[in-house]
Amino acid sequence: MKALIYHGPGQKAWENKAKPRILQPTDAIVRVTKTTLCGTDLAILRGGVATCLPGTTLGHEGVGIVEEIGDAVTAVKSGDAVIISCITSCGRCHYCHKGLYSNCVDGGWILGNTIDGTQAEYVRVPYADNGLHLIPDGMDDEAALMLSDIIPTGLEVGVMNGEVKFGDTVAILGAGPVGLAALLAAQFYSPAEIIVVDLDENRLEKAKALGATITINNQDGQAAAKVLELTDGKGVDVAIEVVGHPATCEVCQSIIGAGGHIADIGIYSKGVELHKEVLWTKNITIRLGTVNTTSIPLLLRTIQSGKLDPKQLITHHFSMNDIIHAYDVFSNAAEEQAIKLILVNDLDGTTPVAANGSAQESLIEQIVAQVMREMQ
Amino acid sequence: MKALIYHGPGQKAWENKAKPRILQPTDAIVRVTKTTLCGTDLAILRGGVATCLPGTTLGHEGVGIVEEIGDAVTAVKSGDAVIISCITSCGRCHYCHKGLYSNCVDGGWILGNTIDGTQAEYVRVPYADNGLHLIPDGMDDEAALMLSDIIPTGLEVGVMNGEVKFGDTVAILGAGPVGLAALLAAQFYSPAEIIVVDLDENRLEKAKALGATITINNQDGQAAAKVLELTDGKGVDVAIEVVGHPATCEVCQSIIGAGGHIADIGIYSKGVELHKEVLWTKNITIRLGTVNTTSIPLLLRTIQSGKLDPKQLITHHFSMNDIIHAYDVFSNAAEEQAIKLILVNDLDGTTPVAANGSAQESLIEQIVAQVMREMQ
Amino acid sequence: MKALIYHGPGQKAWENKAKPRILQPTDAIVRVTKTTLCGTDLAILRGGVATCLPGTTLGHEGVGIVEEIGDAVTAVKSGDAVIISCITSCGRCHYCHKGLYSNCVDGGWILGNTIDGTQAEYVRVPYADNGLHLIPDGMDDEAALMLSDIIPTGLEVGVMNGEVKFGDTVAILGAGPVGLAALLAAQFYSPAEIIVVDLDENRLEKAKALGATITINNQDGQAAAKVLELTDGKGVDVAIEVVGHPATCEVCQSIIGAGGHIADIGIYSKGVELHKEVLWTKNITIRLGTVNTTSIPLLLRTIQSGKLDPKQLITHHFSMNDIIHAYDVFSNAAEEQAIKLILVNDLDGTTPVAANGSAQESLIEQIVAQVMREMQ
Amino acid sequence: MKALIYHGPGQKAWENKAKPRILQPTDAIVRVTKTTLCGTDLAILRGGVATCLPGTTLGHEGVGIVEEIGDAVTAVKSGDAVIISCITSCGRCHYCHKGLYSNCVDGGWILGNTIDGTQAEYVRVPYADNGLHLIPDGMDDEAALMLSDIIPTGLEVGVMNGEVKFGDTVAILGAGPVGLAALLAAQFYSPAEIIVVDLDENRLEKAKALGATITINNQDGQAAAKVLELTDGKGVDVAIEVVGHPATCEVCQSIIGAGGHIADIGIYSKGVELHKEVLWTKNITIRLGTVNTTSIPLLLRTIQSGKLDPKQLITHHFSMNDIIHAYDVFSNAAEEQAIKLILVNDLDGTTPVAANGSAQESLIEQIVAQVMREMQ
Repeated sequence: MKALIYHGPGQKAWENKAKPRILQPTDAIVRVTKTTLCGTDLAILRGGVATCLPGTTLGHEGVGIVEEIGDAVTAVKSGDAVIISCITSCGRCHYCHKGLYSNCVDGGWILGNTIDGTQAEYVRVPYADNGLHLIPDGMDDEAALMLSDIIPTGLEVGVMNGEVKFGDTVAILGAGPVGLAALLAAQFYSPAEIIVVDLDENRLEKAKALGATITINNQDGQAAAKVLELTDGKGVDVAIEVVGHPATCEVCQSIIGAGGHIADIGIYSKGVELHKEVLWTKNITIRLGTVNTTSIPLLLRTIQSGKLDPKQLITHHFSMNDIIHAYDVFSNAAEEQAIKLILVNDLDGTTPVAANGSAQESLIEQIVAQVMREMQ
Repeated sequence: MKALIYHGPGQKAWENKAKPRILQPTDAIVRVTKTTLCGTDLAILRGGVATCLPGTTLGHEGVGIVEEIGDAVTAVKSGDAVIISCITSCGRCHYCHKGLYSNCVDGGWILGNTIDGTQAEYVRVPYADNGLHLIPDGMDDEAALMLSDIIPTGLEVGVMNGEVKFGDTVAILGAGPVGLAALLAAQFYSPAEIIVVDLDENRLEKAKALGATITINNQDGQAAAKVLELTDGKGVDVAIEVVGHPATCEVCQSIIGAGGHIADIGIYSKGVELHKEVLWTKNITIRLGTVNTTSIPLLLRTIQSGKLDPKQLITHHFSMNDIIHAYDVFSNAAEEQAIKLILVNDLDGTTPVAANGSAQESLIEQIVAQVMREMQ
Repeated sequence: MKALIYHGPGQKAWENKAKPRILQPTDAIVRVTKTTLCGTDLAILRGGVATCLPGTTLGHEGVGIVEEIGDAVTAVKSGDAVIISCITSCGRCHYCHKGLYSNCVDGGWILGNTIDGTQAEYVRVPYADNGLHLIPDGMDDEAALMLSDIIPTGLEVGVMNGEVKFGDTVAILGAGPVGLAALLAAQFYSPAEIIVVDLDENRLEKAKALGATITINNQDGQAAAKVLELTDGKGVDVAIEVVGHPATCEVCQSIIGAGGHIADIGIYSKGVELHKEVLWTKNITIRLGTVNTTSIPLLLRTIQSGKLDPKQLITHHFSMNDIIHAYDVFSNAAEEQAIKLILVNDLDGTTPVAANGSAQESLIEQIVAQVMREMQ
Repeated sequence: MKALIYHGPGQKAWENKAKPRILQPTDAIVRVTKTTLCGTDLAILRGGVATCLPGTTLGHEGVGIVEEIGDAVTAVKSGDAVIISCITSCGRCHYCHKGLYSNCVDGGWILGNTIDGTQAEYVRVPYADNGLHLIPDGMDDEAALMLSDIIPTGLEVGVMNGEVKFGDTVAILGAGPVGLAALLAAQFYSPAEIIVVDLDENRLEKAKALGATITINNQDGQAAAKVLELTDGKGVDVAIEVVGHPATCEVCQSIIGAGGHIADIGIYSKGVELHKEVLWTKNITIRLGTVNTTSIPLLLRTIQSGKLDPKQLITHHFSMNDIIHAYDVFSNAAEEQAIKLILVNDLDGTTPVAANGSAQESLIEQIVAQVMREMQ
């Protein structure tokens, strides 16, 4: 089969690799029908993830069809359409029993990191009963694909860790794919205001289209001052840091109000300064974490109910064979106005890609269409 | 001044009464500009509330203008436009410190019950710093009036006590004013499905217009069976009982799923059967309570953010002088298609009532108008 | 092997039965070294548990040695000393993911109910990775045995469902084995007062020895009045109902304070009256449920830390061969001053019973010994 | 009257000052019968608290007798024995309604900071209904004095913010007065292990006497390594930082386990490094805050129930006239083996000091005495 293989910092190739097979009775083999790229994949290629060794197939998101299951797998069977969770969980350890799947002693984020991942025709999924989720009949598989990682990450690590609630003022620092996922998820809790801060005007426009009530371009470095002015000096109830940069951390700490919550989604390669000399009087909670994907079942129901349309995050489609080109586009996400790129496994000719590599119909068009439907 | 005075079961009169005056340094006198009727007022008139003695002015909802304050009042001043909370709280007792304002040792629901209420030109509000809330500039005073009682009741006693969360299936038993308030409030938490059950087709249509995803007319007594069928036998995550009748209690207990929450808003004059022989295996939580109105500040922000339009509950307007007629209409709420009726204090000629006694513009019109605004 | 087999209401026998064998790759076979009797076993024998069919081996508590495991079992291996949880959980279903193991779609309370149980030389344990817990080196196996059911039940269904917290006043209605387990568990949360109510003076003395601060004998039916007097009319913060009788339910509802929690452990064969006409003003939470045994790992650590001595609940020891006699003693628990009875599997002669059928050293002696140790 | 007045960094004097008087109807004047010194007082004297201006009377802890009340005060009256909370709260603002008294818009920590404090014969207490707590009949006033600040701080900012629960492993970094208060409070929640780390052997011995299960002297800088070894590399569930030093912050971050909580009590004059590059995979919660003293009522009940003996923290007694000497002793707390020092207002000759300036009977003696009482 074909797979996108990491060959060390800066090096990757779309090449042949042996098809995976069942190693444990709890494994399943899934034929990947669609996958996508994540900022973490770029981090690996920059050499920033030491656990990922050369020779590994990248990718931790995907939907597909179950090809084969081990003897102890009962939740899915051959032929089932499934979402592949980016997190592997044994379901038995101390951490899994607390819902901390990302800290599973025999799992966590291993797909496309310490074991072969989903940017391939086939993938082996350990503990398949926990790591695969059936796609309900009639659900769009690209909507489902957004539940592998990005929507649960925005929701669990951003919104739930930040304890967003109705009436709150929320600030989201960073309007990239995960920031926009947090923006969609925050609206499940009806905050009064969602302020999105970024440096790129295109992204801020998208944030506005997706539900931000206020957007701030921080090119002038005045974001913190502007947020404080907007909140009469009180600061925000929740600040969600998505960029992983010391400067946005500073903004979060400057704008957080008394009793507020800071949720850190951003990934860091070194420490940042925590201003305890200011925050100790403010009764602040800070949470840092990795997605556990415990929210996938509820998110499936939320999509079915029409209260979430994760396809709003999808901007481009490619054939899997064009994955190297897709990486190029994703590496220039700002210029390409790229959020999530879909890679379609059409290698056996069964799944034609309608709009190969083209930007999706505009978000504005989608939203207007939805309003029209609702008005009927 | 004029006031609507309770004269014992079945008897009320709109007649002269001495204007209230400051009795404690924590009191305020408010000129009531608008008030409304509540099902509890009808309960008092049926003789069902023993604590309310003849001679009491009815009414526990209202907006108005602060006329005078006691020496210890600091949160409001003369001339301020305010919401009168239906709950009085000293802010100092054991219960107030826990946010249980309805159990305040010197307060709770006393307005229009054990002390004179708001269906009058003026009302004395004890512990005014806690019992009055400033109406933000530019907010519609009739939207604000819905925060005196009905929206906080639907939210706190129904939705928050029921712990509604995104992805849930929620059932609301009863589509009267409070049930519809719970329906609006439930949507702050993005449940996947909201099933509304009632016996009246008009009310169910309104529920549909206000966000119910499924409505069930229980004239055939099959509501429980239908809900179980809709949920593949699993039952609902949250059941909110609003009617206060043993039959709806039975439905709640029949449809609640394992791990589910039953929230009781209904008011009862006697006990009901609790089926412990079934529920003990289901890990169920049941909550009964009275509104504390702790949510008013967040609800004000939610209205300002455009995420709540409580005026959707208002169907009729009357002059305060026509309050006896308004009671007649409210007593026949189903036939009159009445939800909340506004009584306008135009006794000094300053506040003309535009649409005296007429049904408000249709809800459908309002919703279409809102969509049009959002599309701009 | 020998097993205690249910032959319909009123009928049981200690007789030969085929040794169980692995049926699923997730099963384990455990040699039961010690087991015990539970009130639920008596309920089955009274014909009160319809799901338990004649021919079933009774018992859902036990410690033992793993004899054999299925191919998919990884958490335990042959030779391990284990606690058998009374609850079977697949770990994969909707309910297991929420920690509601007792509502597991392929499990829950099935041992000694719908499948053969632990009152036998060997037992098959389904989903062994979840249903077995390793006994730490050096831990007394009889202390461990108390974690199969009774201590987790008192803790989870009584104390945690009741949300006992430091400074609270707690009432426990019923001082039988489960009530005493709740009494021990309540002390983990440092309530200010624990009032225990029963009809039997011996049990109340034991409650006093185990940490009750006040005991009330309700022979005169004045328990509710006395509790209200003790609490200056405010009532208790938490009421734990352990008896499963309408009369104790009434007491709970009479004594619960505003904002309080009622936790129902008692098992009922029919409904009880819920006094909504009183409770609706009190902001009350009621929880009913079955143990999930999610607390076993933390309880193991609590025993190791010396903060819990569950052996305080053990009063008698018998050989498994004397199980019929043990049932007789347990059926007359009050007269026999029996709480938990240990049945020792000494059928192969390896485990001598030191004090066969005799009452254990007195609780008072144990407590004094512990104080002496702590003083050193 | 006499008062201890701050005259700028390094300068203080026990001198005459006008007796305070009622300024607002919500004020009370309290005759301070006993007060104590806090590390924060030393911080002010080092010039580390910019808000405290020269001329201010120091001190924010005290018990006393109400001398006079304003017209709006109802919770206390002249002659009442009271605890003075270190936190002033209006009870009406946005923050007070959420229980964040330390962020009160017209209060917070102002006593002995921005207004005159309790190290004087008399003190004016604003919002006396919230800031004063009646001392129950028969309660030792020195036990009560420990509820002004230190026990609530250890409990709320350390233990509750750290979410200590039964079965947990807790580490307390720093065994000074507040660390020891956290140690006492942690035991309300029955953690399995409490590891206390300090550099001073005397303090570690005291920690052991007060309930620490393991103590570690970090003179060799190996505390983190030792804690990880003790926990099989998993780290602790809760780490409470009490010192306010970057080095102890580093230890906390090194030893916190996945899903763990770090509670910061320490006061900082500058920022510290937060190792997000490590913690982002660990699902960690960090809380920083100031005491709100919301726990005082429950702590009063806990003392009454015999489950807390805060006098274990008291080591020295002085006459108020010897306050300058008391500051000297407290400034050399380690050598003097000083924890909390009581200053007795015996200026009018009514309250003789039994053991003026002498170290209190040893803690060991107290503990043995308590065990003896419990054995009776």
